[in-house]
Amino acid sequence: MIVCGAGGRMGREVLRLVEEENELVLAAAVDREGGEGMYQRLSDFAGPADVLVDFSYHGAIGEIMGYCEARGIPAVIATTGHTPEELERVAQGAERIPIFHSANMSVGVALLTRLVRQAAAIFRGCDVEIVEKHHNRKLDAPSGTALLLADAVKSEREGAVYVHGRQGIHKRTPMEIGIHSLRMGNIVGEHEVIFSTDTQTITLKHEAHDRALFAEGAVAAATFLMGKPKGLYRMEHLLEEQE
Amino acid sequence: MIVCGAGGRMGREVLRLVEEENELVLAAAVDREGGEGMYQRLSDFAGPADVLVDFSYHGAIGEIMGYCEARGIPAVIATTGHTPEELERVAQGAERIPIFHSANMSVGVALLTRLVRQAAAIFRGCDVEIVEKHHNRKLDAPSGTALLLADAVKSEREGAVYVHGRQGIHKRTPMEIGIHSLRMGNIVGEHEVIFSTDTQTITLKHEAHDRALFAEGAVAAATFLMGKPKGLYRMEHLLEEQE
Amino acid sequence: MIVCGAGGRMGREVLRLVEEENELVLAAAVDREGGEGMYQRLSDFAGPADVLVDFSYHGAIGEIMGYCEARGIPAVIATTGHTPEELERVAQGAERIPIFHSANMSVGVALLTRLVRQAAAIFRGCDVEIVEKHHNRKLDAPSGTALLLADAVKSEREGAVYVHGRQGIHKRTPMEIGIHSLRMGNIVGEHEVIFSTDTQTITLKHEAHDRALFAEGAVAAATFLMGKPKGLYRMEHLLEEQE
Amino acid sequence: MIVCGAGGRMGREVLRLVEEENELVLAAAVDREGGEGMYQRLSDFAGPADVLVDFSYHGAIGEIMGYCEARGIPAVIATTGHTPEELERVAQGAERIPIFHSANMSVGVALLTRLVRQAAAIFRGCDVEIVEKHHNRKLDAPSGTALLLADAVKSEREGAVYVHGRQGIHKRTPMEIGIHSLRMGNIVGEHEVIFSTDTQTITLKHEAHDRALFAEGAVAAATFLMGKPKGLYRMEHLLEEQE
Repeated sequence: MIVCGAGGRMGREVLRLVEEENELVLAAAVDREGGEGMYQRLSDFAGPADVLVDFSYHGAIGEIMGYCEARGIPAVIATTGHTPEELERVAQGAERIPIFHSANMSVGVALLTRLVRQAAAIFRGCDVEIVEKHHNRKLDAPSGTALLLADAVKSEREGAVYVHGRQGIHKRTPMEIGIHSLRMGNIVGEHEVIFSTDTQTITLKHEAHDRALFAEGAVAAATFLMGKPKGLYRMEHLLEEQE
Repeated sequence: MIVCGAGGRMGREVLRLVEEENELVLAAAVDREGGEGMYQRLSDFAGPADVLVDFSYHGAIGEIMGYCEARGIPAVIATTGHTPEELERVAQGAERIPIFHSANMSVGVALLTRLVRQAAAIFRGCDVEIVEKHHNRKLDAPSGTALLLADAVKSEREGAVYVHGRQGIHKRTPMEIGIHSLRMGNIVGEHEVIFSTDTQTITLKHEAHDRALFAEGAVAAATFLMGKPKGLYRMEHLLEEQE
Repeated sequence: MIVCGAGGRMGREVLRLVEEENELVLAAAVDREGGEGMYQRLSDFAGPADVLVDFSYHGAIGEIMGYCEARGIPAVIATTGHTPEELERVAQGAERIPIFHSANMSVGVALLTRLVRQAAAIFRGCDVEIVEKHHNRKLDAPSGTALLLADAVKSEREGAVYVHGRQGIHKRTPMEIGIHSLRMGNIVGEHEVIFSTDTQTITLKHEAHDRALFAEGAVAAATFLMGKPKGLYRMEHLLEEQE
Repeated sequence: MIVCGAGGRMGREVLRLVEEENELVLAAAVDREGGEGMYQRLSDFAGPADVLVDFSYHGAIGEIMGYCEARGIPAVIATTGHTPEELERVAQGAERIPIFHSANMSVGVALLTRLVRQAAAIFRGCDVEIVEKHHNRKLDAPSGTALLLADAVKSEREGAVYVHGRQGIHKRTPMEIGIHSLRMGNIVGEHEVIFSTDTQTITLKHEAHDRALFAEGAVAAATFLMGKPKGLYRMEHLLEEQE
């Protein structure tokens, strides 16, 4: 495995996981800042590698795609914030090599999203409310993941409307999905989707305790990707295979 | 015990509790709609009584005060929605007889409020968020009890600001108290106050399962009130005595 | 629809639901205790009927099977506690008519069970703990539903061991499924399955607020069953169709 | 402030907190393993100091008491596992200087304990259940803190009996306190005490997110202790003063 951005928080976590698991072998650690035993440029390494995991930064996508295409190496893109051009470049790459690219590298959040869609399909007439909690430094609300979960409900409930907090006189309609953003302490991330009828409630919840879970997700994706045919893969494909 | 409004949901519940508890004796059940074994007017009953519990309606306060003052009977006023004039009448009554009048007849909510105030006094620098859940027919948000709890925090945190939902870019300040109103299913009432620092979280929660708890609270208030000197009593006084 | 056991708690709830929903028509209400407008014996009614819902008692299964087979009426068996002979009778019936028979008539619990199985399949290496809460009069622990959920996890984790409470020195193994039975107040039923790794936790929870949900499940089963070919159906089949 | 055991996890955390807070000044960092700018022996430092915080090990208590008594320095003892002789030494010390020594250095747990005692005093007839969660490496069950909380309930309910898990036929009595120990993932520590009647439930919960909270508690204790008369102080005294 080649790890790009190996000197960052997530890259170091990936290195740790590779060391722990017997089935994985580190081919090269790459970081433009350098570091002990690290290559500063991806092109400096020409040895064999079965997969690449990218935790560097979105702007490096052109270099990484070129490298992997030329050498036929599957790539897990775990960076975020890509421009439309960069996303286009990823799509091009997927016509030649297997690429894993997911909005959320957490296996747990992907699983939650899937379970939420199923619950929404079964409990059609119920009230849905979403509660998310993050640390007090987070600037945007609701979280991207909360919206992703709301969209999963909406995919089974045409015409759903998102309501961000309630104040004053407000008559709830069955089409509302209430989304509530709590900001407090140092919470990494919690998401809870509640489906309620007059007689029963189903609550589906994910808690992230440690950002290392994104590194775990990337390593799981890398293991999944090896041996796959060319194409663009997402966390949903990994879930389907594991089940 | 005289029960006013004995034919209503709460009145019937009070009758049931009086029947169950050995220490209480029913003197008269009063309801203007009548009913089996019930008096239609309070003035129709002139027998002995140790306490009166009022679950009729706020407009009856004049009649009830006059009756209790004349006969020296302690009164638990469990109706809501009084006009300023009616509240003034209650205050006058308290100069002659013991009167119990509380915004919330739930012992549990009163206890929660007290615990919240203590937690707020100790965890001064933390983030506070309040989550309340009610059935989907409730029209106002947040609930009166949620505001009461927020006020309890604010009494220990001068300058606190209430935020009802978050959307878009929003930088949390330590002075914020987030209040989140979920509306779903048939929930009687849940209130949760969360105090969070970077290293720990304290959560204090009350769930009402059955509106009968207000009848229970009124009966507890009646037992508390018997033998007290004249004056106006609230749920806080009952908590202090029980402790 | 024919409703057997129409005078009981669940039967009355079914009658209420049939009255509410336009698509359903009551053909006959049957209860051996009689009741206003009710037949005392199933055989007293010979009019047309599209489905039968049985909330009477397990011993009536022979009579109900005979009646439904003879007339080609689909049957929802919502009673519990059948002897092996009675279960055999149900299986025989399913060779002639469509029969719905499920250990749990709650759509929500069936959904939870399915989601739990999926989560267990994806989060293979994690720790699983189950918490169930019921009223303080429940005599058996853990609840049948808790065991059903544990079995769903075990179906994806060969060799799993159930642990009912922990005390003293106890080293947890990954094969353990902790099952915790809380008994308190008047809780109808709560079941929570927790999947936890070092970095994330998934919690899947069902709360029953009102026993009426079993009547709702039976009515949903009746609607599902009409027009189906002969055979034995369970809640899982209903979920598959609804999705 | 003198910090003993300054090179350990908790000691380093204390140093970090002292650096952050303007009101505190570091006099000396002591660790027998040495370390940059650290004294290896307490006796090596003879400069002025307003308080001492001990996160070294229980066996050092004799040396620390002698040092603090001789120089009149208040001492916060944050080590655990003392022998009866060592505890006796602490008690002797408290006859000469102010000493803070608490079984649990968490302000949050102390607050929870106090709130639990109050709730138990008010909700006398209810069912009490305790749920605690810790990481899967913890060997003992239930946690010491869970027992401390159970004892707080018992102090208001003579004759209470602890039940650790339920299995088989089991009739709950009002005197039972159910204690449930969940072991999973990497959880630092969660404790939840539930008080439930037929109509309402009060839940009081503490979550520890980071062991640093014990260092925070020790620093709070040090600030509290400065200027106090001789004597033995516990977390309860700190809470009383802060309120």
